[in-house]
Formats: sequence, structure tokens, C-alpha cells
Amino acid sequence: MVFVEPQLDLQQIGLSHPRVKQVLDIQRNTAPNRHKLFVAEGLWAHNLLLETGAPVECFFWCPEAIYSDEARKRSSEIAARAYRAYRVSPKTMERICERERPDGMVSIAQLPAWDRDELSFGDSALVLVADAVEIPGNLGTLLRSMDAAGADCLVMTNRRTRLTHPKVFKGSQGMCLTMPSVEFDEVEDAAIWLKRNGFSVYLADTDDARNYREVDYRGRVAFVVGSERYGISKAWYAHGFGRVFVPMLGRADSLNVSVSASVLLYEARAQQDRW
Amino acid sequence: MVFVEPQLDLQQIGLSHPRVKQVLDIQRNTAPNRHKLFVAEGLWAHNLLLETGAPVECFFWCPEAIYSDEARKRSSEIAARAYRAYRVSPKTMERICERERPDGMVSIAQLPAWDRDELSFGDSALVLVADAVEIPGNLGTLLRSMDAAGADCLVMTNRRTRLTHPKVFKGSQGMCLTMPSVEFDEVEDAAIWLKRNGFSVYLADTDDARNYREVDYRGRVAFVVGSERYGISKAWYAHGFGRVFVPMLGRADSLNVSVSASVLLYEARAQQDRW
Repeated sequence: MVFVEPQLDLQQIGLSHPRVKQVLDIQRNTAPNRHKLFVAEGLWAHNLLLETGAPVECFFWCPEAIYSDEARKRSSEIAARAYRAYRVSPKTMERICERERPDGMVSIAQLPAWDRDELSFGDSALVLVADAVEIPGNLGTLLRSMDAAGADCLVMTNRRTRLTHPKVFKGSQGMCLTMPSVEFDEVEDAAIWLKRNGFSVYLADTDDARNYREVDYRGRVAFVVGSERYGISKAWYAHGFGRVFVPMLGRADSLNVSVSASVLLYEARAQQDRW
Repeated sequence: MVFVEPQLDLQQIGLSHPRVKQVLDIQRNTAPNRHKLFVAEGLWAHNLLLETGAPVECFFWCPEAIYSDEARKRSSEIAARAYRAYRVSPKTMERICERERPDGMVSIAQLPAWDRDELSFGDSALVLVADAVEIPGNLGTLLRSMDAAGADCLVMTNRRTRLTHPKVFKGSQGMCLTMPSVEFDEVEDAAIWLKRNGFSVYLADTDDARNYREVDYRGRVAFVVGSERYGISKAWYAHGFGRVFVPMLGRADSLNVSVSASVLLYEARAQQDRW
């Protein structure tokens, strides 16, 4: 079989082009980002963009940096899907890329926006509330664990880190594209939304709490986990929600937030018997 | 109450001093490190050195950079414990420190060495085998989870990352100092050691495996987890050990290794009913 190089005829742009600057801004994660744009790098991330149908704002293509046949093929598909597509030099590609060897493909893409009022849940459901979680890598690992445990939705309150942070995309293995997530400015509104949707809510806390193995998680269950340093914010304690703790039997005083959330999610999932 | 500044009269050294170079070498994690030396920074890490009695090879003290009264007090205690102690300038302190504001304290300390033949286990015991785990942060989080779950020992085979890596110390919250760990050059020897100590061994694998909730973990149990990219190495499959899997119900094909290990450890621990 003869492999035919796809003929992409794209305008070449350089480091001073506004779109190139935009990539760097998104990676720095400093400027406002109302459209929830993030940067996807390499073949694996682009396959995920194609699978999930995420909108691609801008595709940067560097044929000299492509090393896999699959990337050559996908380049045409992504270019066809993107609102804009440009060719860049290997040097520019290296500048806009955080990873090494991105296989000639970088894109600015858009995270989906979920409407909290349109999400629907089954008789059994699992929601995780991340309250003021600070470290992007932790939020990423949380999303990856939620995906694995078959959770239904991430709720964010007192948001400290953005889902568009490069480390969230990596840590979640791109699951920020597929795991529904909604954000509330006020804890109060999140609590009302959970109650209205029939969720039993449990705060992960060690004080005045029950061992997480001794609770019945059938039905719709939401766990609230808090910031790495300060725990769950006060406002969550005003609603009479239950509290559960994961026993800590050693010398350190805490578990990594994504670890404790995963232990809780898997316990609930096993009880809900949905596997 | 009048606070009396401890009077430490230490020789001042600069960037070109061999001990300063040694700190940088250990942090770079490139040179051989037979004596298992690692770098401890700041008050929290030094409190842990004092609590655990870890040998302190060299203490670097910068009184101008101290901002807490407790650090002032601990400085004298650490200096008294250290084989060597020097004063350094704020500029030198900044160079040898990875974190910001180390509270005037940096040390080269030694990880304990555990003798595999002298470790003893109770009727119920939990061991985690990390086979070829590559990412230091993952190994650190593993150790932190092992501490929390009250595990007894970390076994390393096909070691790819060192326990002295700065990210292991941080990720484990210093639990690499207290959680016993032993290393085997050959998987064969680790398998024999586990059998001789009466452990039921389970490989964490998705192929031909049982759901992790359907296994009886009473007694002495060891879980084997593998590298982030390649899983468990072949040699582990030659011993007829059982296999367990944590169900993955989503789109991504794997869980973070420290997350899946934690889910397994907590399940076993709950069954062993040791809390």
C-alpha cells in the first residue's frame, strides 16, 4: 500500500502571530478565559478531540515534526474541523509546546459547557464536589478517577484552579472533555441544586464523622472534598449534611485529596452495584 | 516572655563549598547515592527529622531567612544533632533550596535502611510492591497512602526512581522516613521473600483477574502494582499469584497507580478490620 501524504495547504505563521501568542497565554493560565479554551498537544489529545467532537478554534500544523503515519492522517481531519488552521515551523512548534515531540500537532480547543439544569441522573448516581481544590494536578487526577468509577458529574465551588489548566487536561487524561462539570459561585446554590436533584450529600471530614464503610450509599450520592490546605469551606456545614471519614492509621495527618475521593467513590460505586 | 535567640556559632560557607555542591547534586538526583541521602527543607521537614531520629549529615543554617520562633528553636536542636553544621548567606540558602521561604533551614539527611530479614509481620499485614514505578510523585503519594492505610512495608522491584528524589519526600509528606521499604534486584527474590513470609500476593491487572471486591484479604496480603506505562513486569507472572482488578467504567483506560493502589489497600484494610 502506498501512503499518500495529505496535501494540506496552510498559511505559515510565526512567533509574532496573535494566535501563537494566544497559545502561550492559555498555557500560562493567567489571562481571563471565558470561552474555556485549552491547548491540546500531540496525537493522543487530537484523537480525543476528534472522538468527542470538541470545537477546535485553531490548529497548528508542523509537517516536519510529524513522526507517525496516524498523525499525518489525523492532521487533515483536524484541519478540516478547525475554524482556523496554520502551518508553523519546527522552531515555533517547539515554543508553543509544553511536551516534547508533539507529533506536529497543537490545537486551541474548547471545553464543553454543561448546563446544570439540563443534567439528568439515574436512580443511582455519583457526584463529586471539589470545594476550593487548589492544585491542578489533583483536579486532573480527580477527574480521571471519576471517569474510572463511572461518576456522573463534577461540581466545583470556591473554584481555585481552572479546568483549562494544562495540568488538568494531562492529569485527567483528557477526561475533562467528557466528564460533565458545573460550577457554582455560591455554595448555597450548589447545596440547593444537590437537594433538588435528590442527592444525599456527605462531607469528607474527620471531625464528628462516620467511618466511610459504615454508610449506605445507595441512590444518589454526592461527596464534598475540600482544599488541600484548609479542607471544606464553612458554608458547606450549614446544611445538615452527613460527614464521613476515611481512617488514617499512620503518622501523616491526611490523604491526597484525589486519593481519598477515589476511595469514597469506589466504595459508593461498589455498594450501588453498578459494575 | 522574652525570646532568647539561640547562639549558634557556625562557620560560614559559600556556593563553592563541597557540601553546598553536594546538596545540589542530591537535588538533581543524577549522581550515585549509595548512602540514601536526601535534602530536607524548612521547619516541617526538620521537625520530622527530629521526631524520627534520622541521621543528619549536614545542616545549613541561615538566621536571616528564619521567620518563625519555632524554627529558631529547632535550629539549635538540629545543629546539635548534625554531624556538620554551617551558616550560609541568604543568597546561598536561596540557591540550595527548591521551595520558597525554607525558614532558614536545609539539611542533608539519611533515609533509614531496613533489613528485609529483620522485618516481622502480624497475623494481618499489608505490603505493597511497586514494580518499575517511574514517576517520583506517584511513589510519594503511594507512600502517603500506605501510611494512612496502615500498611506494613513497601517493596520495590525493577526500581526506576529513588526514594531520595525530592518529589518522593514531598509527595509522601516525609513518610519515606517512617514506612519500611526494601528493594530487590530480582523479582524472583521478592516473590520468594513474600512467600516465605506467608503473604497472599495479588497482581493488580485487568486481564484474567477478579473484581477486587470479591477477594478475601484476611491474613497477610501483598498487592503488586506496575509501571505507569507498561504495567507489571513479566517476571511477576511466573509464580501463580492471583490477579485482581479495580473496575474502570469510563472512557480512559487506567487509573493513576497511586489511586488504584490506595483503593486496593483500603479494601484490604477494611476487611482485615484493623481500625
